[in-house]
Amino acid sequence: MLALTMGEPAGIGAEIAAKAWLALRDGGPAFFLIDDADRIGGVPVERIASAGEAAAVFPRALPVLHRPLPFPAVPGQPSVATAGAVLAAIEEAVALAKAGEIGGMVTNPIQKSVLTAAGFPHPGHTEFLGELAGTGVPPVMMLASSELRVVPVTVHEPLARAIARLTPELIVEHARITHAALVRDFGIAAPRLAVAGLNPHAGEAGTLGHEDQAIVAPAVRMLRDLGIDATGPYPPDTLFTAHARPTYDAAICLYHDQALIPIKTLDMAGGVNVTLGLSIVRTSPDHGTALDIAGKGVASPDSLIAALRLASQLADNRRKRA
Amino acid sequence: MLALTMGEPAGIGAEIAAKAWLALRDGGPAFFLIDDADRIGGVPVERIASAGEAAAVFPRALPVLHRPLPFPAVPGQPSVATAGAVLAAIEEAVALAKAGEIGGMVTNPIQKSVLTAAGFPHPGHTEFLGELAGTGVPPVMMLASSELRVVPVTVHEPLARAIARLTPELIVEHARITHAALVRDFGIAAPRLAVAGLNPHAGEAGTLGHEDQAIVAPAVRMLRDLGIDATGPYPPDTLFTAHARPTYDAAICLYHDQALIPIKTLDMAGGVNVTLGLSIVRTSPDHGTALDIAGKGVASPDSLIAALRLASQLADNRRKRA
Repeated sequence: MLALTMGEPAGIGAEIAAKAWLALRDGGPAFFLIDDADRIGGVPVERIASAGEAAAVFPRALPVLHRPLPFPAVPGQPSVATAGAVLAAIEEAVALAKAGEIGGMVTNPIQKSVLTAAGFPHPGHTEFLGELAGTGVPPVMMLASSELRVVPVTVHEPLARAIARLTPELIVEHARITHAALVRDFGIAAPRLAVAGLNPHAGEAGTLGHEDQAIVAPAVRMLRDLGIDATGPYPPDTLFTAHARPTYDAAICLYHDQALIPIKTLDMAGGVNVTLGLSIVRTSPDHGTALDIAGKGVASPDSLIAALRLASQLADNRRKRA
Repeated sequence: MLALTMGEPAGIGAEIAAKAWLALRDGGPAFFLIDDADRIGGVPVERIASAGEAAAVFPRALPVLHRPLPFPAVPGQPSVATAGAVLAAIEEAVALAKAGEIGGMVTNPIQKSVLTAAGFPHPGHTEFLGELAGTGVPPVMMLASSELRVVPVTVHEPLARAIARLTPELIVEHARITHAALVRDFGIAAPRLAVAGLNPHAGEAGTLGHEDQAIVAPAVRMLRDLGIDATGPYPPDTLFTAHARPTYDAAICLYHDQALIPIKTLDMAGGVNVTLGLSIVRTSPDHGTALDIAGKGVASPDSLIAALRLASQLADNRRKRA
C-alpha cells in the first residue's frame, strides 16, 4: 500500500489522483490519498479511517484519508491558508511509512512560493523529507524512466555556482548513496555507475577545462577504491545515446540540466523523481503543480502513474531484502 | 553536385565514402571524393579530371578527384606526413564551391591533433572554413537532425569560461546568423528561434542565477526589435521535449552540451554538422575519425549520408533563392 499526498490543492493533484485510480484500480498498485475527501470528484470516493482500510476499498473507490482543508481550494489560485494542510499530509505520510503501515509514499507537486510565504523553511520536498526521514546522509534526487536513471550532484543553484562547488567528495557522496539505493531498492546486485564529465568532450585531456581531470577523475578513482563499479568522466554529449544508455544503471551528473535534459528529451511524461538516502520509499511525478491547467480536466496522470508503479517496485524490493 | 573531402586518411573517411556511394548511387544526391583514388576499395572507382565529369560517372562508380597521398595511410595511425594533403582537399573543395562548380561541400572528419602538430593554426574545420569562405561574420555551428536543430553560442571551451563569456551581443550575433541561414538555405520564410536559458528553470525569476534575466532576456528583446521571431529564455530541461520541439525551427543554446546532449540523445547517427555564415554550403557528419575502428569495415555511413542529403537540400534552396 502506498500513500499519495494532496500536494498543492489549487493544482492538478486531485485530478491526476482520480485519473491514476481509474488506471490502476484493476491491477494496482493500490494507494490512498491524503486530502479533503469532499473536493475529490469524477470517481467514486470512500473515506478511510486508517491506512489499513485502504486495500479493501481500492478496487471499488479511491480511498481517501480525509483531512479537511480550511476552505475550498480555487483551481489555479494557491493560498497560504492551505499551506498547513499541505505540509501535514506530507508529515502524516512519512509517519505512516516509518511505522511500516505503508510501503512508501508518493507526493503530488507542491507550490513552493506559497509554502515559503507561509514560513516553510526548506527549498523543496526533498530537503523537508531529509529532515523528517533522513539517514545521516543528504537526500539525493534521482530521475528515473524506462530508458535512463540520472542523479544530479548539484541541483537548484546557479550553474556557475554549481561548477564552483564541485568537489571529488561531493561526487563520491552522491554516487555512494545512489549505489546503495540501486542495490537495496532497485534490486541491482552490482550497479554500474557512469560519471559524466563537466566540460565539452570531458575536457579533452585538459585542453577544454581542468575540472574533469582535477575533480571528476579523482572521484571515479575513489569510488573504484571503495569497490564501486564507477567509470568516467565521460563526454557528456555521448553519455545518453541509445548505444551508451544500456552500459550503466545510473548516470551521475554534475549539474541540473546535464541530468534533466536527456531524461526529459527522451520521455517527458514517464520520468519519476525518486528521493534516495531516506529511511522510507518516496517518489513523485516529474512535473509541477500545473496551475495553468488546474481544474480543466486535461492534466495527464502518466507521470503520477509511473511514480506509483516505481514506488511499489521499490517497496517490494526493500521488503524482500529486509 | 557535392564534393566530399578525404578527412583523416587513417580514419574511416574512405570507408564511409564508399558505403555512402553504395547507398546513394541510384537516387543521389551525387557526390565525388577528393582523395587518393588508389586507396579506395570495395566499390568501383573512377578517376575524374574535373568536377564536371562526376555526374556522368556517379551512377556506375564512385568518382574520385585523384590527389595522391605521399605514402599509404595506415588505418588507426595518423601521420603528420599526410596533413598537407588533408588540408589541400579542403581548400580545393572550397575553391570549387566558390567558383560555382559544385553546390556544396561535405567534409570527412579530420584528426585535429595531427594537423596541429603539422602547424595547422585553427581549432578545427569550422574556423579554417571561416578563413577560406567567410562572409564577415563568424562561422556558426549548427547540429541538425530530423527532429531538432540546435546552435551553440559557445562551443569548445571550458564550461565556466563559456558562462563568463556570454553577452547579449554574442547571443544576438549567433541568432541572427542562424536566422539568415534558415531563410536562405533551409527555405523557412519566417524562422522561429527558441533561446535556451542558462540556469536551472531559466533562473526561476532570478533566484537561481542572474544571467537569464541580465543576459539572455535582453538578447531576446534585441532580436525581437530586429523583427526576428525569437522567444525565451526557456528552462533548458523542457526545451527539447517532444512537445516543445515542433514549436521552433532552431534552438539557440548557450553552451556545447546544452545543444549536443539533446540532439545526440535523440539521434546519435543522424545528426549533421552544418556551418552557417559561410559563402558556401558545408556540412559534415557529426562524429570523429573513429581511429579505433578504422580499417575494420564496421563504420556506419549513416551520418555521412545524412550530411550529403542535407548539403544537397541546402544547395538546392540556395540556388532557388539566388
